[in-house]
Amino acid sequence: MKNFKPYYAVIFTSTRTEGDYGYNEMSALMESLAKNQDGFLNIDSARNEVGITVSYWESLEAIQSWKQQTDHILAQQIGIKDWYKWYNVKICKVEREYEFNK
Amino acid sequence: MKNFKPYYAVIFTSTRTEGDYGYNEMSALMESLAKNQDGFLNIDSARNEVGITVSYWESLEAIQSWKQQTDHILAQQIGIKDWYKWYNVKICKVEREYEFNK
Repeated sequence: MKNFKPYYAVIFTSTRTEGDYGYNEMSALMESLAKNQDGFLNIDSARNEVGITVSYWESLEAIQSWKQQTDHILAQQIGIKDWYKWYNVKICKVEREYEFNK
Repeated sequence: MKNFKPYYAVIFTSTRTEGDYGYNEMSALMESLAKNQDGFLNIDSARNEVGITVSYWESLEAIQSWKQQTDHILAQQIGIKDWYKWYNVKICKVEREYEFNK
């Protein structure tokens, strides 16, 4: 595709434990912190039986910086302890895209 | 990462119109048809304000074959006519992943 500049997606798929344990509050905080990171592009989330959050980034370096952000490291630790039964993180290169708008 | 074989993800993000218009039935049918395609690996879906469906495939050729599958073409046409206000499709190469299991 002409003039398409590849960027990166982090697909975070998860199943939650029962109970909130501060999850909703921290989730909103993490989203606002991610948006302030260098190289952040966009984020989409939805949850039913499974939760899917996809964040988009300019580079692998931007993803690495976000992974190592101090508050995010704390959230990752609580996530393992309290919030998630299971999660999977995939680092992807977005190679092309198309869109429909009514 | 050692021994990691890259594969592909199709991230389909959408917002629905009001009303069902046969969407739920067709959605279930499309998922079962996708699972029968050569090169299909997995699919995850969730919908709140935004819907996210991520399907995983062995190759770009497998994604192309699914895009051109007859029933899927029909679903894409109804999708544009009735189901979606907006959608975006991203073709991605999954470069690495990690997982947590309690």
